[in-house]
Amino acid sequence: MTTSGPPLKRAQVERLVRYLHFVRQSKGRSAAVSSARLAEHAGLDESQVRKDLAAVGVRGRPRVGFRPAEILSAIEKRLGLDQGYRAVVVGAGRLGSALIAYPGFARYGLEVVALVDADPLKIGTSIGGLIVHPVERLGEIVRDKEVRLGILTVPDAAAGEMARRLACAGVQAIWNFASAGIDVPEGVYVRHEHLSVGLAELAYHLSGRVSAE
Amino acid sequence: MTTSGPPLKRAQVERLVRYLHFVRQSKGRSAAVSSARLAEHAGLDESQVRKDLAAVGVRGRPRVGFRPAEILSAIEKRLGLDQGYRAVVVGAGRLGSALIAYPGFARYGLEVVALVDADPLKIGTSIGGLIVHPVERLGEIVRDKEVRLGILTVPDAAAGEMARRLACAGVQAIWNFASAGIDVPEGVYVRHEHLSVGLAELAYHLSGRVSAE
Repeated sequence: MTTSGPPLKRAQVERLVRYLHFVRQSKGRSAAVSSARLAEHAGLDESQVRKDLAAVGVRGRPRVGFRPAEILSAIEKRLGLDQGYRAVVVGAGRLGSALIAYPGFARYGLEVVALVDADPLKIGTSIGGLIVHPVERLGEIVRDKEVRLGILTVPDAAAGEMARRLACAGVQAIWNFASAGIDVPEGVYVRHEHLSVGLAELAYHLSGRVSAE
Repeated sequence: MTTSGPPLKRAQVERLVRYLHFVRQSKGRSAAVSSARLAEHAGLDESQVRKDLAAVGVRGRPRVGFRPAEILSAIEKRLGLDQGYRAVVVGAGRLGSALIAYPGFARYGLEVVALVDADPLKIGTSIGGLIVHPVERLGEIVRDKEVRLGILTVPDAAAGEMARRLACAGVQAIWNFASAGIDVPEGVYVRHEHLSVGLAELAYHLSGRVSAE
C-alpha cells in the first residue's frame, strides 16, 4: 500500500489514465499543461479535471497550469504503476502473441514472464522471446515467478476452465479477453476486455444513429 | 435508419451488449430469462435491466421473465447489428492479424474485407485469407468495396497519419487500437480501444487498493 486517500472508482481510474497518457505523449514539449488542454483531450469539463488532479494531490498555478512531471509522478504513484508486477499469458494464439509484443505494458508496470497453452503442438515453441509451457505447469509458474496477473486469451469455450486454473494457481487478478464471462473465487479481480462492446457501439453508430453523449 | 426511439448513450449501448451477450450464450438452455439473472450477469440493478429492455420494446411477463429470442431480436435491431458493414484493417502486425481472426466480428454485423500496411515486405503476403495491400490503395479500396469502418492497429507513431488517410478515404468510423489519440474531421466517429486503461486498472488493483465500486 504505497498510495493514500480513499479507494478510487473505476471511472476515476480511467480518467486518471487519460490524463497520464496525454501528459506522457506531450512531455518535454511544454513546461506546463492547462486544465483546458487536459479537459479537451479527455472530453471532460475543466472542473472535473481539476477535481481529479486535486484528489491525487496535484494543484495547478493560476494562469500557468500544472507541471507535467508532477502529474506523471502523482498519478503513477496513486495507481501503483511505480511498483511493477508479473503476468502470465494463457493462450498462445494470435491475440496472446499480439499482447506479448504490446509495447505499452512496461509503462504500466507490467511484465509478461510466462506463456502457457493447451495445444501440444505449441508447447516448447518460442513466441516473443517466451517459451510456451503446458497449462499443467501454471501453478508452478505462478508460484516460482511470483506471477500476480493472468492474461486470458483463449477461445470462449476454454475461458471458464482456464480462469479456474489461474485462480487455483494463485493469481490475484485476471485480464479476460474472451467474450465469455468467467466465474472466479472472491478475491480474484477480473477486468473484462470485451471487444464486442466496441463492435456493437460502432455498428450502432454506422446504422445511422448518432450518440447523444 | 432501421431503429426507433431517441439516440442511445454510450453507456446504454454497453449495457445492451451485455444483455445480448448473456442471452446469446445461454440461448436454447431456457425458455425464459429473468431480470434477476440478467442483472447479476451485468452487475446492475434489476430495475435498470427492466428499464433498458423496455426502452428497446421488450417487456417481460410477471413470474416468467423475458423471452430470449425477443431480447436478441430487439437489441440486434436497435443496435443495427442486423445490417452488416465492411471494414478495412490498417496495420498487418500481430494485433491486426489477431483481429482478423477474431470470431466475434460476424456476430456484430462486421466483415473485414481488406488489409493494408505500409511495410513493403508485407505487401502481397496473405494473412487470415486476406492479401496485404499498400496503404496507397486505401482510397480505392474504401470506395470499391464500400468500406465504412477503418480498424487502426498501427504503432502509435503512425496512428495520426493513418487516421488522416482513413478519413480522406471516406470511412465513417475508426476503431483505434493505438494508444495515441487521433484527430479526425467532424463526422468520423472514433472508438478508442485503450488497452492502457485496462492495464492501469489492474495495476491499481494489484497495488493493494480495492475499488469502492
